[in-house]
Amino acid sequence: MKLNERGLLVVISGPSGVGKGTVRKALFEMEGHDLVYSISMTTREPREGEVEGKDYYFVSKEEFKERIKNDQFLEYAEFVGNYYGTPKDKVDEQLDKGKEVVLEIEVNGALQVREKAKDGVFIFIAPPNKAALFRRLLRRGTEEPETIDRRMKKAEREFPLAHKYDYIVVNDEVHNAADRILAIIRAEHAKTERSIYKYNEMLEVK
Amino acid sequence: MKLNERGLLVVISGPSGVGKGTVRKALFEMEGHDLVYSISMTTREPREGEVEGKDYYFVSKEEFKERIKNDQFLEYAEFVGNYYGTPKDKVDEQLDKGKEVVLEIEVNGALQVREKAKDGVFIFIAPPNKAALFRRLLRRGTEEPETIDRRMKKAEREFPLAHKYDYIVVNDEVHNAADRILAIIRAEHAKTERSIYKYNEMLEVK
Repeated sequence: MKLNERGLLVVISGPSGVGKGTVRKALFEMEGHDLVYSISMTTREPREGEVEGKDYYFVSKEEFKERIKNDQFLEYAEFVGNYYGTPKDKVDEQLDKGKEVVLEIEVNGALQVREKAKDGVFIFIAPPNKAALFRRLLRRGTEEPETIDRRMKKAEREFPLAHKYDYIVVNDEVHNAADRILAIIRAEHAKTERSIYKYNEMLEVK
Repeated sequence: MKLNERGLLVVISGPSGVGKGTVRKALFEMEGHDLVYSISMTTREPREGEVEGKDYYFVSKEEFKERIKNDQFLEYAEFVGNYYGTPKDKVDEQLDKGKEVVLEIEVNGALQVREKAKDGVFIFIAPPNKAALFRRLLRRGTEEPETIDRRMKKAEREFPLAHKYDYIVVNDEVHNAADRILAIIRAEHAKTERSIYKYNEMLEVK
């Protein structure tokens, strides 16, 4: 029995190349959990096959800028001439339905979200050591040496930001990491500040 | 991979009759966890078959009082002329070995422990409703009506103290409750304040 009925905003973040996407994917493959992706809003054109409200929310630049002005994003960024952001209202809708909204995002974005969503759960995915992360970046093999070098330097700048998160989960083995995230989600629901309201109601505590 | 290598002091508490003992038992039956009981120190005589350092640490009243004076208990109480307490040094020894030390204790004792062990994990076991708890108290059947009445009143006084704990776990079904406690233990190990030291060392963060 879960005393907290509202869903959790679960922010999965970590340095460039740590394997956030793989962990997130493994998490969604686990059974018995009410997880949904956070869907981004963008001003770029839909590509063939992309579905509004599933892949992205597609909006005009005017609408996007209006939403920025009204503080309606948990975070946003510009990338090659287009905007991308996480719309607050859409996330809240899902949380109200009791869904855990998973946001997989880079460190900068996550720290932006932290400012706006105080009750989110912020998880930093860490590599088991530097070599493992650099090997991962190299193994992709598709990128230019300068790109790899840039990403390594970015990761080095991101390592010291782990202390700003609630939890640190080591991606030594992807299923371990996903499993630990599920434990965090279960534990967070049991936290007193999230469950005391329903508890007091249940036991008629004034 | 666990970044925090020190064990956790896990305090399982809750109102009279909620089934703390049953939950604790179910917890210890679960596999793959390094849980140990906290062993109490007492001034009462050992009963037949009781083993020093397994059932209790048996000490003289003089030694017990000396330990009280030196602030060597996480909590203690007097009960029908004898002292019972949780010795700090013994708990620390186990935590240093990486064991999770489980202390199952009444609300008053738990709140005493909270004062001395700031980094402990305090879990309040709640009944799914008042009727369930009162049914449990009645079902024991071995006690006098006055005893049952006293315990009910005690429980009523304990209900409002849940907010002093870190987590509230509903004992709707004993295995659910035990499972949620295991999730809490896993999550607590991943907490940034417990893992940042090893993380910084691992990734050479200055």
